[in-house]
Amino acid sequence: MLPFEHTIELRVRYAETDAMGVVWHANYLTYFEVARTEALRATGKFSYRALEDSGIIMPVVEVGLTYFSPARYDDELRVTVRVTEPPRARMRFTYEVVKRDGTRVAEGFTVLAFVDAKAQRPCKPPKDVQAYFS
Amino acid sequence: MLPFEHTIELRVRYAETDAMGVVWHANYLTYFEVARTEALRATGKFSYRALEDSGIIMPVVEVGLTYFSPARYDDELRVTVRVTEPPRARMRFTYEVVKRDGTRVAEGFTVLAFVDAKAQRPCKPPKDVQAYFS
Amino acid sequence: MLPFEHTIELRVRYAETDAMGVVWHANYLTYFEVARTEALRATGKFSYRALEDSGIIMPVVEVGLTYFSPARYDDELRVTVRVTEPPRARMRFTYEVVKRDGTRVAEGFTVLAFVDAKAQRPCKPPKDVQAYFS
Amino acid sequence: MLPFEHTIELRVRYAETDAMGVVWHANYLTYFEVARTEALRATGKFSYRALEDSGIIMPVVEVGLTYFSPARYDDELRVTVRVTEPPRARMRFTYEVVKRDGTRVAEGFTVLAFVDAKAQRPCKPPKDVQAYFS
Repeated sequence: MLPFEHTIELRVRYAETDAMGVVWHANYLTYFEVARTEALRATGKFSYRALEDSGIIMPVVEVGLTYFSPARYDDELRVTVRVTEPPRARMRFTYEVVKRDGTRVAEGFTVLAFVDAKAQRPCKPPKDVQAYFS
Repeated sequence: MLPFEHTIELRVRYAETDAMGVVWHANYLTYFEVARTEALRATGKFSYRALEDSGIIMPVVEVGLTYFSPARYDDELRVTVRVTEPPRARMRFTYEVVKRDGTRVAEGFTVLAFVDAKAQRPCKPPKDVQAYFS
Repeated sequence: MLPFEHTIELRVRYAETDAMGVVWHANYLTYFEVARTEALRATGKFSYRALEDSGIIMPVVEVGLTYFSPARYDDELRVTVRVTEPPRARMRFTYEVVKRDGTRVAEGFTVLAFVDAKAQRPCKPPKDVQAYFS
Repeated sequence: MLPFEHTIELRVRYAETDAMGVVWHANYLTYFEVARTEALRATGKFSYRALEDSGIIMPVVEVGLTYFSPARYDDELRVTVRVTEPPRARMRFTYEVVKRDGTRVAEGFTVLAFVDAKAQRPCKPPKDVQAYFS
């Protein structure tokens, strides 16, 4: 089912802005997380919460972002998340944030590891995750 | 040792401001938390981290804040935290935030419960906490 | 049109949780802000963004919250905001946060002032706001 | 005066942790910002606040982070920021976060642009900034 793609929409909250009048740059990582959560749920097969409940956590081990144009309070943003490579010990997601009118706001990626929460050691992705993103 | 009082100083971070150019109102609760953490450490007897490590957590059950004057990025703030009543099942802290020049910024209180983390049930304050704040 | 009431639904983001595994208490003020933004928009007459664009800002001058039960990552929350008194120099909103199953999570209020952004002085609410909430 | 280097110390706040019990990954960008603010002040020549007051803002246009080891509530972190290239239209900062015992926590970089706030257009760095970082 690769490449996988999912898009969410969200509105910029006042709490997410800074004194420049725009979204504080770190908050795009929160938008990425929301997109990731909804993308996993959209598979209909699993969710990140269920994954954690089963004892597997996915800490973020690497991120990168480029900012093109600022977003402001109450702006409606469209965040698209993509998976293009099968997950192994790590899973890579890429993201694109645009305004409703198509203006490119930011792009980025996050790499997450699969970790056995109890043992606190890296582990393989669950079988259903591997099967879905293949 | 009641009344107990402790003062910390901190600088407003850019991340803590909002599009009005001032500290986002909820962030004063973060300042209160920092003051509380340092106040407990300043007793020389215990710390909130040690408390959690011993199995007791202190969730916040009630807060109140009044805002007088906005603070901006890079402002130096003085946060004073006070305990005036002996802790029982709950512990009340009051706070005062002023600028370096004495301008009153905000005031507030938080009430925290003592909870046995394992049992997820209310519990008494540890003996040393009770003894110190009496 | 008083009493006024509006309800939104939102999901707890991972970013909003803390080391206790629950929503960091200050983040309910963010939820209140989202509910307020959507409530004003739901009137079909104005929006907080349009208000700011017209030169009036509404800083928060007082808040109060009581917490009943923690919410966790991915929980679906229902936030109801109410206005029961006509706005004058200040406007009071009350809030109720419940889980989907009805569990009471938190309650609170915020008082916001009307301020002329240019003059940085308190002002009256705009006529349409006054008319709507009367 | 290149290479330039400055180190700050800070403690992890409870508000900065997430449900994994560790610092939410986006918050390292806040730590970077604090380090950057203090580094500019440490030059004794200028500060980011003075820069903004003079009409120049420095929005973040690119970031990258790698995470090695999680940090927890109340951990003392040392954040070192470095400038190794003279600023032109953009200025690059690199960062290293370690625990007190030397454990490597995270590394990263941010690229900031110089922007004339009034004209909302890119501009050259101020002369004193150029002179200092050369």
